Amino acid sequence: MKPTWRIIDTTLREGEQFAKAAFRTEDKLEIARALDAFGADYVEVTSPAASPQSQRDAAQVAKLGLGARVITHARCVVDDVQAGIDSGVRGIGLLFATSRILRESSHGKSIQQIVDAMGPPIELALRAGLEVRFSAEDTFRTGEQDLLAVYAAAQRLGVHRVGLADTVGIATPRQVYALVREIRRTVTCDIGFHGHNDTFCAVGNAYEAISAGATHVDVSVLGVGERVGITPLGAFIARMYSLEPQAVAERYRLGQLRELERLVARVCGVEIPFNTPVTGETAYSHKAGMHLKAMMENPGSYEIIPPEAFGLTRKLIIGSRLTGRHAIA
Amino acid sequence: MKPTWRIIDTTLREGEQFAKAAFRTEDKLEIARALDAFGADYVEVTSPAASPQSQRDAAQVAKLGLGARVITHARCVVDDVQAGIDSGVRGIGLLFATSRILRESSHGKSIQQIVDAMGPPIELALRAGLEVRFSAEDTFRTGEQDLLAVYAAAQRLGVHRVGLADTVGIATPRQVYALVREIRRTVTCDIGFHGHNDTFCAVGNAYEAISAGATHVDVSVLGVGERVGITPLGAFIARMYSLEPQAVAERYRLGQLRELERLVARVCGVEIPFNTPVTGETAYSHKAGMHLKAMMENPGSYEIIPPEAFGLTRKLIIGSRLTGRHAIA
Ligand SMILES: O=C(O)CCC(=O)C(=O)O
Ligand SMILES: O=C(O)CCC(=O)C(=O)O
Ligand SMILES: [Cu+2]
Ligand SMILES: [Cu+2]
Repeated sequence: MKPTWRIIDTTLREGEQFAKAAFRTEDKLEIARALDAFGADYVEVTSPAASPQSQRDAAQVAKLGLGARVITHARCVVDDVQAGIDSGVRGIGLLFATSRILRESSHGKSIQQIVDAMGPPIELALRAGLEVRFSAEDTFRTGEQDLLAVYAAAQRLGVHRVGLADTVGIATPRQVYALVREIRRTVTCDIGFHGHNDTFCAVGNAYEAISAGATHVDVSVLGVGERVGITPLGAFIARMYSLEPQAVAERYRLGQLRELERLVARVCGVEIPFNTPVTGETAYSHKAGMHLKAMMENPGSYEIIPPEAFGLTRKLIIGSRLTGRHAIA
Repeated sequence: MKPTWRIIDTTLREGEQFAKAAFRTEDKLEIARALDAFGADYVEVTSPAASPQSQRDAAQVAKLGLGARVITHARCVVDDVQAGIDSGVRGIGLLFATSRILRESSHGKSIQQIVDAMGPPIELALRAGLEVRFSAEDTFRTGEQDLLAVYAAAQRLGVHRVGLADTVGIATPRQVYALVREIRRTVTCDIGFHGHNDTFCAVGNAYEAISAGATHVDVSVLGVGERVGITPLGAFIARMYSLEPQAVAERYRLGQLRELERLVARVCGVEIPFNTPVTGETAYSHKAGMHLKAMMENPGSYEIIPPEAFGLTRKLIIGSRLTGRHAIA
């Protein structure tokens, strides 16, 4: 039994947009290898059109010969797609801002002009044999009719996947579920979800996207990305593990998660947040007396993910003021 | 226009169960005052039955004369309720484990025995004039019939509020929505939600509880609590602010959030996670060239919560490799 969804890790693209990230080429190669060791299905790198270094780095990651599929990301314009093709990646995510606010502040095009402009870059990428995703940037501030129009156009052009992008972190879980369901009825291709964490709903939203029929979820290690970032890899894995443990444990090398996070934290110069699911410093610490008593009877009492599954151990804090008389029956 | 929901801050109860917390009396008083300055509707403190210090501290917080309502939390047994009454608090949250796994590892009672045992402690608390909440611990691993039976019993006894407690962080957002709706049809009293963050869904879940009709949400500053903690105050406020800015800004003193978080981080000896909504170090940093260009046109392009609302400022990162040729139009 395998999960029906795939992980697109975008630490090397979205994560490069994290204010504290300044990846050197060797950092990128090390992170790409560590992601591959974990079992990431896809590794997304910054557009080769962004800078000469991005171009060289994309090509180097593409040449590593990873098990993970290396893809890049680009504005939906011919030149940027050509740069992606030239870099040797296997797929490309194309982005076009569709909300009114971003259309006005970004490119000034109407929905009809977007639909007209989509053709050449998408066709170029498809002819080159790339796996192509088309995303409507700022999906959740875009009118539903506008969205359906651009996704239908992308589907007619033959993209492999359409992407919903909660670019500003505004979406709510049931809203994501409803919109993915709606799009699931409109297109036959795969559906991806990319969600920012500005209101701390990025994991709940990604999960509801999957339950509504999305096939791919964007994550990054520790969630690094623009502002407070996106759905964190580890938290998303914890979410899915709690629901389908066997499938998740079979597909991903969970014992590698902690090292992967430490690597990215070190390269970015951040601490691993104390509230990180599974790998956070206190994630397996149990303190209240009533909890301790029950944990000694059955560790499932207050743990839905056994630490052993991720190569970790638990910690019972005996002797605090809260242990009180209920710690040991 | 005021929000229809209330915040119960449990930094001084759930947060005391955080592995790294060892609050001294003066810390508790300082945190309680800072919560009050922020405008927390309720401040929950550790059960006076837990230890002699908890007893003294509860009484001291109760005597501060806060605008926030000071409540405590206790096992659903007569002695613990009496200790709560004696401490001078205005309300009490009573907890009874109802899932099969916790019933077995915690107290060995059947649902019928729980229903029978609820009467005396609840009646005692109500007779003393306390505001009473009854929570089914581990709600989301409890059978629905069992849940409805205990909540119906609590309602018959006259509690002011029933609480859903996602004690192990397993609930998913639509599941929370559906269950709160179901309980909303069964009881007429208020409904509270308390959710742990083990799968990083605690904010999405709290939000969906509210949209389904819950009236109260448990939060703690930075989410501190058992393991990786619960719904963080600031993240929940960010979630709600994005949907009802005026009501949230009128009720809470948002400019105090950052100081409140710094206080709790210092007392606990943790760093404020970089991915903390609104107040995180990089929450208002914008880096990608396309983002910068749009932000200069309209700050709403990539920000759903203006930093000024929380007394903060934004930061445009010019000159990185990602600024590229698109940073300035
Ligand atoms: O291409 C995508 O699906 C996501 C792009 C992105 O990072 C965003 O819109 O936040
Ligand atoms: O009393 C409640 O509602 C919550 C108790 C608690 O901390 C939990 O079940 O996680
Ligand atoms: Cu993004
Ligand atoms: Cu709790």
